[in-house]
Amino acid sequence: MYPLAGSQPYPRNQWYVAAWSGEVDEAIVARTILDTPIVLFRDADGHIAALDDRCPHRRFPLSKGWLKDGNIVCGYHGFVFSGSGACVHVPSQARPFESQRTTAYPVRERSNLVFVWIGDREAADEALLPDLAPMHADDPEWELVVGGKAHLQARYMLLHDNILDLTHLSYLHRNSVGSPGISRARVQSTDLPNGLHVDREVLSDTMEGSPLGAALGIQGPVDRLMPQFFLAPCLHVTGPEFRSAMADGVKPGHSYGIFRVIHAIVPETPSTTHYFWGVTRNFKQGDAAMTGVLRKNIEAALAEDIEASEAIERMLAMSGGPEEINCAADAAGAKGRRIIQRMINAENR
Amino acid sequence: MYPLAGSQPYPRNQWYVAAWSGEVDEAIVARTILDTPIVLFRDADGHIAALDDRCPHRRFPLSKGWLKDGNIVCGYHGFVFSGSGACVHVPSQARPFESQRTTAYPVRERSNLVFVWIGDREAADEALLPDLAPMHADDPEWELVVGGKAHLQARYMLLHDNILDLTHLSYLHRNSVGSPGISRARVQSTDLPNGLHVDREVLSDTMEGSPLGAALGIQGPVDRLMPQFFLAPCLHVTGPEFRSAMADGVKPGHSYGIFRVIHAIVPETPSTTHYFWGVTRNFKQGDAAMTGVLRKNIEAALAEDIEASEAIERMLAMSGGPEEINCAADAAGAKGRRIIQRMINAENR
Amino acid sequence: MYPLAGSQPYPRNQWYVAAWSGEVDEAIVARTILDTPIVLFRDADGHIAALDDRCPHRRFPLSKGWLKDGNIVCGYHGFVFSGSGACVHVPSQARPFESQRTTAYPVRERSNLVFVWIGDREAADEALLPDLAPMHADDPEWELVVGGKAHLQARYMLLHDNILDLTHLSYLHRNSVGSPGISRARVQSTDLPNGLHVDREVLSDTMEGSPLGAALGIQGPVDRLMPQFFLAPCLHVTGPEFRSAMADGVKPGHSYGIFRVIHAIVPETPSTTHYFWGVTRNFKQGDAAMTGVLRKNIEAALAEDIEASEAIERMLAMSGGPEEINCAADAAGAKGRRIIQRMINAENR
Repeated sequence: MYPLAGSQPYPRNQWYVAAWSGEVDEAIVARTILDTPIVLFRDADGHIAALDDRCPHRRFPLSKGWLKDGNIVCGYHGFVFSGSGACVHVPSQARPFESQRTTAYPVRERSNLVFVWIGDREAADEALLPDLAPMHADDPEWELVVGGKAHLQARYMLLHDNILDLTHLSYLHRNSVGSPGISRARVQSTDLPNGLHVDREVLSDTMEGSPLGAALGIQGPVDRLMPQFFLAPCLHVTGPEFRSAMADGVKPGHSYGIFRVIHAIVPETPSTTHYFWGVTRNFKQGDAAMTGVLRKNIEAALAEDIEASEAIERMLAMSGGPEEINCAADAAGAKGRRIIQRMINAENR
Repeated sequence: MYPLAGSQPYPRNQWYVAAWSGEVDEAIVARTILDTPIVLFRDADGHIAALDDRCPHRRFPLSKGWLKDGNIVCGYHGFVFSGSGACVHVPSQARPFESQRTTAYPVRERSNLVFVWIGDREAADEALLPDLAPMHADDPEWELVVGGKAHLQARYMLLHDNILDLTHLSYLHRNSVGSPGISRARVQSTDLPNGLHVDREVLSDTMEGSPLGAALGIQGPVDRLMPQFFLAPCLHVTGPEFRSAMADGVKPGHSYGIFRVIHAIVPETPSTTHYFWGVTRNFKQGDAAMTGVLRKNIEAALAEDIEASEAIERMLAMSGGPEEINCAADAAGAKGRRIIQRMINAENR
Repeated sequence: MYPLAGSQPYPRNQWYVAAWSGEVDEAIVARTILDTPIVLFRDADGHIAALDDRCPHRRFPLSKGWLKDGNIVCGYHGFVFSGSGACVHVPSQARPFESQRTTAYPVRERSNLVFVWIGDREAADEALLPDLAPMHADDPEWELVVGGKAHLQARYMLLHDNILDLTHLSYLHRNSVGSPGISRARVQSTDLPNGLHVDREVLSDTMEGSPLGAALGIQGPVDRLMPQFFLAPCLHVTGPEFRSAMADGVKPGHSYGIFRVIHAIVPETPSTTHYFWGVTRNFKQGDAAMTGVLRKNIEAALAEDIEASEAIERMLAMSGGPEEINCAADAAGAKGRRIIQRMINAENR
């Protein structure tokens, strides 16, 4: 299970993002998380429910059915289940038996993200929900734009590797959001309880020729401050602040604004992954053109990350190959791997 | 092998439908039955032959060749085989050797259906052919319309489950051939030597808004009589008679006619299935418009059954999930599973 | 591993064709040979280098990168490797460590073909390169036309079988390059050190109705001389000389010219194969119309061979089937199988 040891591909007793809240407002959502097909819907009280998507009667997907009074009706033989997993109607019976029920998974909504707990139900612990402060999603000075989601034919750890080694911006994203100085920047990382805080300062870098730089109106040399947070097992917050680096020019130290990108990297199966993303910013709130610029630039970079990760996944499907080598820039990525590995190990003690 | 126990997916020493007769009149037919690729063609006497489709010389599909004097010519190197499996010509030899032969499978034609026996040749027993009387295919008062065939990415038992629990008509087929009363009807089942006869009476049901009801000219409440026959391992005969249920209206008890649907459910591989279907009726024989109505309505329902079965098959490909639960309507389906399981067990004693 | 015994699918300590030289002139080439993804490029000296395509840092395909001063730059994080496999630059380090290197494979160019050695490096032996004289590629009296390459969903041995039993020209290629007499011709084979030389004389054959015959201007009966060479493990040279067979007509014994087809049959994986082909001729050199005629006819036949091999591969994926039978025409093919099997056995002693 490169790049992890052992046969268990992911921690199970953790909260994972299963959807953006808005998705469940619009439709019944079918989604596979940690090899488990679930159906998400809002019950009569407006709470999101997560049931196993396999109807316990004949395994037809409940998500192909419909809602009735906040319960979900199976579209095959008409069994009806409440958000708690209890069966509330069986067409051929006067009333359901107690034993006719299905599996419900714990759900929490935070900052427009829907978290589910697929592991042992009795281990579900709200205190393990990540601290989403670095997202600024609930900060009135900031605006959240829900980006969307992507689906990858690649294992989730390749994306943790990707995000924790931002030197790839100078190469993989050289034609989109990258700049040449990033691969040579000084990096400092601090451990968090279940994660990592990495600080990167790219001094006197250039954004000349970069679509992102042009969109932000950057002129001349800039300092690019790039804090990033890994909130294991599935969230990252990244994103730059650009500051004018002209020592004696116009507005030295002037900030062009800050944006933060939220990445939720969620295993679907051992070799496929959901990627939910969004962006918050502290400037030009409500400006649709700026929203469009950020969306377009982030989507361009994301497409490059997806293509790279899927290419690597195809390589991993082949046996053999040279021994893995590491370099100075891999410190944060190596820590990230160890955090995930520790979570897996803790479940097997 | 849900929903069956054990590792053998299907009975082998049985007759299975491999084609409609008309298909073999029109072309050389290649078809995989019980994991075995066969080629079907008519020999010089007009009998249908079934050979293994893998030429014993270099495993090129014989079905890609052509017929010559009722024998089949391999399109790769020109070996020629008779319907008995004997090699009758080898281009590079003066004459074939006795040992140069291939495998032929027993074949019987009945009521426009081609049955083959893929299991142990010495066990082939004509007495095991199903009694096709419920089809009425050879009854001059009835007309047979060959419907066609479909191919499913789903195990065959899901379709036996499907047909033996007709409460799904009220849900899965709610917008096509179903009606709400079916899921609540009284059901009675009788064992047959290798099968099951189930009777279902849906009283005072409505066909309002149903395309099928409109096509048959049904007005007001109807009783829907729904006998069905499972002729294991592969045939079902189903289909309704609609009778006016107006107690004191026009023509109480008036029959709108009877039609019977023939379903042959034949395993291709453990997770794929052939579905051959046809329809017989005792009214409006030769009426092309009525033939069109029946074909259209049955095809619509079949498309829904296929979509459902394939959705379930994808669910079965994932491990885990809630325990299977059953309900009052599952009596016939449970008997059907036991019939198939008994046939498998009998081969392994 | 039909048609070979044992679990090793191919000899590894051999030279295999990985590309036509011209492909590497035009672009960085990514190709999987014997389950091993390699990247081919020309270094600063113009020599072709073959590295493992999996960057040893994070397994991104080096072939998605770019060349800089004859070295290859990884497009993910910017590692740079020379053609010898040494790492010459790591962006986050002042200089690379000695241990930061990757795998390079021996390469030889001969007659426009690029040979690589994927097996044990210390066993690589230039003396094992095939004698390409039968190709006439370096003969000034002959013209080489590089045909191209195809990719098959079929194991390589099916193509050795195919080429070593040319009786298939009378059946599989009956509408393209074949003629009826070939399947009955006298055949004589001579062992070569690592291969086979087969001679076939088709006397008084007809090319009437054959597109190839028309293109070559053949009139009346012809003798078709068909020498062929198997240069194991991957090369074949085939191709006819047509001579007028009119005993007392115009120009008895007149030669319509000779062409030779080069086939390199190279395992990609156990069930997929690369097919490189070209054609040389000793007549109408530089005549674009004749080049077009040969290319079109050979491509038509190749398409038939591909379709047949892939059909057989699908049959081999199913278990069971009749016992393999052989015939008089299989002598050369059987020898070919033994040559490959001996090469495999020699590696396991």
